[in-house]
Amino acid sequence: MKISPLQLARYQYAPKLPGMLRNGIAEICVQNGAATESVADQQKVRALFPNTYGKNEITFRKGENTSEARKLTVGVILSGGQAPGGHNVICGLYDALKALNPENQLYGFKGGPSGLLDNNFIVFGDEYIDQYRNTGGFDIIGSGRTKLETEEQFAVVVENCKKNGVNAIVIIGGDDSNTNAAVLAEFCAAHNTGIQVIGCPKTIDGDLKNEDIECSFGFDTATKTYSELIGNIARDANSAKKYWHFIKVMGRSASHVALECALQTQPNICLIGEEVAEKKMSLAQVADMIADSVAARAANGMNFGIAIIPEGIVEFVPEFSVLIAEINELLAGEKTQQFNALPTWAEKYAFIKAGLTEASFSVFAILPENIQQQLFLERDPHGNVQVSLIESEKLFSALVKENLAQRKKNGTYKGKFGTQHHFLGYEGRCAFPSNFDADYCYSLGYNAAMLIQYGYTGYLSKVSNLQAPADQWVAGGMPMTKMMNIERRNGKDKPVIRKALVELDGKPFRYFAAHRDQWAIETCYTYPGAIQYFGPSEVCDQPTITLTLEKA
Amino acid sequence: MKISPLQLARYQYAPKLPGMLRNGIAEICVQNGAATESVADQQKVRALFPNTYGKNEITFRKGENTSEARKLTVGVILSGGQAPGGHNVICGLYDALKALNPENQLYGFKGGPSGLLDNNFIVFGDEYIDQYRNTGGFDIIGSGRTKLETEEQFAVVVENCKKNGVNAIVIIGGDDSNTNAAVLAEFCAAHNTGIQVIGCPKTIDGDLKNEDIECSFGFDTATKTYSELIGNIARDANSAKKYWHFIKVMGRSASHVALECALQTQPNICLIGEEVAEKKMSLAQVADMIADSVAARAANGMNFGIAIIPEGIVEFVPEFSVLIAEINELLAGEKTQQFNALPTWAEKYAFIKAGLTEASFSVFAILPENIQQQLFLERDPHGNVQVSLIESEKLFSALVKENLAQRKKNGTYKGKFGTQHHFLGYEGRCAFPSNFDADYCYSLGYNAAMLIQYGYTGYLSKVSNLQAPADQWVAGGMPMTKMMNIERRNGKDKPVIRKALVELDGKPFRYFAAHRDQWAIETCYTYPGAIQYFGPSEVCDQPTITLTLEKA
Repeated sequence: MKISPLQLARYQYAPKLPGMLRNGIAEICVQNGAATESVADQQKVRALFPNTYGKNEITFRKGENTSEARKLTVGVILSGGQAPGGHNVICGLYDALKALNPENQLYGFKGGPSGLLDNNFIVFGDEYIDQYRNTGGFDIIGSGRTKLETEEQFAVVVENCKKNGVNAIVIIGGDDSNTNAAVLAEFCAAHNTGIQVIGCPKTIDGDLKNEDIECSFGFDTATKTYSELIGNIARDANSAKKYWHFIKVMGRSASHVALECALQTQPNICLIGEEVAEKKMSLAQVADMIADSVAARAANGMNFGIAIIPEGIVEFVPEFSVLIAEINELLAGEKTQQFNALPTWAEKYAFIKAGLTEASFSVFAILPENIQQQLFLERDPHGNVQVSLIESEKLFSALVKENLAQRKKNGTYKGKFGTQHHFLGYEGRCAFPSNFDADYCYSLGYNAAMLIQYGYTGYLSKVSNLQAPADQWVAGGMPMTKMMNIERRNGKDKPVIRKALVELDGKPFRYFAAHRDQWAIETCYTYPGAIQYFGPSEVCDQPTITLTLEKA
Repeated sequence: MKISPLQLARYQYAPKLPGMLRNGIAEICVQNGAATESVADQQKVRALFPNTYGKNEITFRKGENTSEARKLTVGVILSGGQAPGGHNVICGLYDALKALNPENQLYGFKGGPSGLLDNNFIVFGDEYIDQYRNTGGFDIIGSGRTKLETEEQFAVVVENCKKNGVNAIVIIGGDDSNTNAAVLAEFCAAHNTGIQVIGCPKTIDGDLKNEDIECSFGFDTATKTYSELIGNIARDANSAKKYWHFIKVMGRSASHVALECALQTQPNICLIGEEVAEKKMSLAQVADMIADSVAARAANGMNFGIAIIPEGIVEFVPEFSVLIAEINELLAGEKTQQFNALPTWAEKYAFIKAGLTEASFSVFAILPENIQQQLFLERDPHGNVQVSLIESEKLFSALVKENLAQRKKNGTYKGKFGTQHHFLGYEGRCAFPSNFDADYCYSLGYNAAMLIQYGYTGYLSKVSNLQAPADQWVAGGMPMTKMMNIERRNGKDKPVIRKALVELDGKPFRYFAAHRDQWAIETCYTYPGAIQYFGPSEVCDQPTITLTLEKA
């Protein structure tokens, strides 16, 4: 197997731990914090988690290790989409377990949660682990999207753990996976299984964030990789001076990724889904806002620009959500066959016009034909529109083009509007973790082992004070129930960790809002360049601008 | 203006010159090499370049500078598509000119060749230049695609140069731009203008390469940026294990970029246009080759993979080129209107079937419908098919899908085939130049100033021995006529610098060919990661694998 020079060099990198974890295992003690309550719906959440609710927050500090000598066998899974640093969580966990007791074992369950159900695992050893230090990807054991949420599944997991002598499970995942980890922890406690469950906060989307979790891992590296590329494209635009680039970035449910990339690169336009929803903007209004920038720049001789579009943007446009709901209704059940039987698009179009409300049809009518067809022709197995397939970057550039044609007729625009489209997603999820993510993830894993050693369950591995250098980071654990509230999911009340949306009164958005009018008209691009691992600290060790502003 | 930490740090980078240029301006002398002949068609080329043909190759070496003291005013342009390092060519040129004589001036003509025609320029000063050291992009003066090729244009250029006291022009461009630079040099010499013309070899495509030019600048950085992303995507594929990624990379005329990326990342499939043409492969054969890999991997439980597709691939498929020619013929002149008047696609399809030869229709018939429609509906102002718009990555994944469906029927394939598509182009053309490109470009510019000082014209700035550390590089100049042959262009014989295609008996392709059968079936991905500027030399200073193999 051929290994790249960077990968070989990164094997040598020693991730930085929080200062309090640097004194050796024998010198780590627990400091108890306050008892916790869930962020909302305390009575309901307490009732659902009688064994794991209300525990204390804890932090580690220097002091005599008072934990009981034990031999631990820990199982770990990677859950959901890839995020840079996942390998380092496992490496940190492994190193701490071996430091605690050389006889401790770490099992990696393969392919995500299904590995726990199928009892499919490997036993980690030094040689194997060493191949994955400070690397990107989840290929160390693979990942998967199976949801671990039913009592039947939990029973299978417990059975497999008992069969293998597993004392504890570490679940590396996003908000859903950690919600399920909390429920599993409660199940294990309620059934006196002795099995502990610890979560670690992963997701490039940045939407697993709250007053306890300063950021999820992977967000730093992914947004830096996307920003590298957006900066490169912006520099190209500013050199060739002939294209508007519409760049879609990953992130379905929240626009954190788009916002961070905008703070890094200062594009002419960046849409923020949460703002579009809050202001109840229509597609036409969004297009008009972009066209304002295009026209103003054209008037200054600049027929080029950069627009960042969050992947999930259309779902934040209220009128579009209504349209999607009506289409799903219009084609429910047997009506799909009736629709499909219509031989021509013209006949289908008439069917659609007759079936939609006037308001929704007027939204439908302004869409480019290929997107109209996509909405009706490419549906999921349940017959629903596949919103994720909608190429929103092309949708908005088409709407802007229409808008500009109108302005041209009115004599208010005289420029040229050439476009290029990009989607940045898979390019960033498996990059070599930045020093920040390499350190943060290793610390999360190391810390998870300490939580297990001290007997905690239902806790999230928590490392905070992340805007400071790593030696000042604070390591500890927070009961996952503390982050929960009750939400309606599929017609049922469910305790869940609340997804963090972009807060319009938060500092990152406010910084963006204060500058974007200037960015829209002038050329203020910043070019972050590729992630650096070896250079000056101000180049290599900066956290995201989002985190820096939030903690300022 | 906000400047990124990396950009600030890169300002401090001192590009490495060839050893022989490191002794100070007073210690650079000329060593004459042999007189040159053009690579082919010597008589014809000599006749077209009576004043600039047959000159000696020269190299610089340490020794007393024997050039005449002069005050130089030099004009520089960037021509054509962006390539990382263009700014450094200008910085090297500027620094050498100022070192030769502080009164020397460098003028930057804006927006490419049209700047020379419109007499639109800026005068460079330290403060301005310093903002662009070691940065990507061509935004220092912009670029453009105007062709500088007629005698009338040359006369305007000369007039503008005389008006501004410009003694020499440096043209930074690809094969076409340097061909035109040679013709301009001859024009200037023939008319005793005293104006010298020097070329510098630029293009990320890597197709400006011959026995004198070891590589064009920008190829190194662009392919490293694409390889970073392909590696990241491959790691994602190998983690999620559910998609085949079809990744198109820039490069219309030659497949050097695709080949270098394949050598860097070891994908399952990489198409090479030159091989497809040489073997006269059909679309179906190419698809079948890819499907073989998909099926073999699926049989081993791996329903994922990476396929690299060169942007210009379809133009290398003989049957496809014939089809395009027939379509252009079928819709020539008034026939376009007749075609457009047909109301439905079914009627248009019948018209197409009737108009194409049987062989071409059979090619047309296997294309996915959206590509069929694209061929007929989106044509350029002359009515020709816009081959560059064809999404070849989607074309091949669609053909492979069909092929696999057939295999499934035959019982020879049982896998799943989910796909993702990517196009990597603008992401890499304006990256911060790698140390290699930063050094190489600065040296090319510095060297160009020395060629001017010593009175040369019609020369290409030549820096060679590039596989070695920079102190061992060899700096000098080569008459551009040496690289020329006569080719038929638009019905006329024209002297041109020959475009370098991938040589199927060259070492880079042979290395690829020797390994690809293994790569197609196994998972041998290499993950190069982001370009590094500050780390260990084996990470930061490696030339491309193509160059390394060619010089091995």
